[in-house]
Amino acid sequence: MPLSIRNQFPGTVKEVKLGAVMAEIIVQVGDNQFVSAITKDAAEDLALKAGDKVTVLVKSTSVMIQK
Amino acid sequence: MPLSIRNQFPGTVKEVKLGAVMAEIIVQVGDNQFVSAITKDAAEDLALKAGDKVTVLVKSTSVMIQK
Amino acid sequence: MPLSIRNQFPGTVKEVKLGAVMAEIIVQVGDNQFVSAITKDAAEDLALKAGDKVTVLVKSTSVMIQK
Amino acid sequence: MPLSIRNQFPGTVKEVKLGAVMAEIIVQVGDNQFVSAITKDAAEDLALKAGDKVTVLVKSTSVMIQK
Amino acid sequence: MPLSIRNQFPGTVKEVKLGAVMAEIIVQVGDNQFVSAITKDAAEDLALKAGDKVTVLVKSTSVMIQK
Amino acid sequence: MPLSIRNQFPGTVKEVKLGAVMAEIIVQVGDNQFVSAITKDAAEDLALKAGDKVTVLVKSTSVMIQK
Repeated sequence: MPLSIRNQFPGTVKEVKLGAVMAEIIVQVGDNQFVSAITKDAAEDLALKAGDKVTVLVKSTSVMIQK
Repeated sequence: MPLSIRNQFPGTVKEVKLGAVMAEIIVQVGDNQFVSAITKDAAEDLALKAGDKVTVLVKSTSVMIQK
Repeated sequence: MPLSIRNQFPGTVKEVKLGAVMAEIIVQVGDNQFVSAITKDAAEDLALKAGDKVTVLVKSTSVMIQK
Repeated sequence: MPLSIRNQFPGTVKEVKLGAVMAEIIVQVGDNQFVSAITKDAAEDLALKAGDKVTVLVKSTSVMIQK
Repeated sequence: MPLSIRNQFPGTVKEVKLGAVMAEIIVQVGDNQFVSAITKDAAEDLALKAGDKVTVLVKSTSVMIQK
Repeated sequence: MPLSIRNQFPGTVKEVKLGAVMAEIIVQVGDNQFVSAITKDAAEDLALKAGDKVTVLVKSTSVMIQK
């Protein structure tokens, strides 16, 4: 089912770090590494682990620019 | 000056579309295209135009994951 | 494909208002009405119109509380 | 005092989970459960606990759509 | 009614600019000027105009740092 | 290098609190105190500590208004 989220990039999970409430997920997308901070519950529900094929999602209003 | 923003990807502006209050900027980053929605004032202050070398910035709490 | 986004509520589009860059979408979810501001491009890509069955998505870090 | 925040839904706190910096709050709103990730300090300042009557707040730019 | 939003600063509206969907509001807070992009509907519902006494609100997860 | 981020306020770090994944940073800006929730990795990469001169950054779409 398509999403209104404009930025959708396929990648591979490199690392999952769980905290008490939040989790940090590193995803390799081409030559770039994305850092994602989601809830620990979300990371556990998706059973995220290194090697998983995932899609990274970012709303366009969350994308800033430096020139 | 370094930023707390974890995701910083160099790219090239492909297109700038100005609205009354907001602007949409397309940035090519490697094989991926980012869509950024910023204020028109920000786009004008940075004088963003196709061909500009820029860096795309995304906070880690703005990065979601689909598996 | 499951999402890390914790808040997912099925609803029905009531109204679509297009601006130059952004669009406002009203979605009925049970007794509540959600207002969503997405890019016009996203609204057009999803061909959103009144009556569409959709799912409203909200990250947990975007949910604030008033007591 | 009215807020610019478009989405305001009354509900009841079901669960409060405190981490070191962040807290996760579950709020029942009609038939739906909202998950909110706020700072632990905010949760403690509001003295949030199960049974509290609260209002869930979401900016319209934080509401995404899946069709 | 208290809010989970950590950053609350009283100020005065300096300027209101309305687009088709979004609005830009300039608020003077002490020596600093805040720029706020909210929906036009929100600006109209609050009847925002220059001179209004308002409070600017920012979630702590929206505050980034440059050193 | 200039940023599309509209709100940039110079200040001084008052306190740094590290969690497992997230960190909370208190920054004094004039008469106001900002609370920032960033990842612990970001706080450590910037080596943030009390007394540091920093700039607080907030996107205009993250600034809400209460009247």
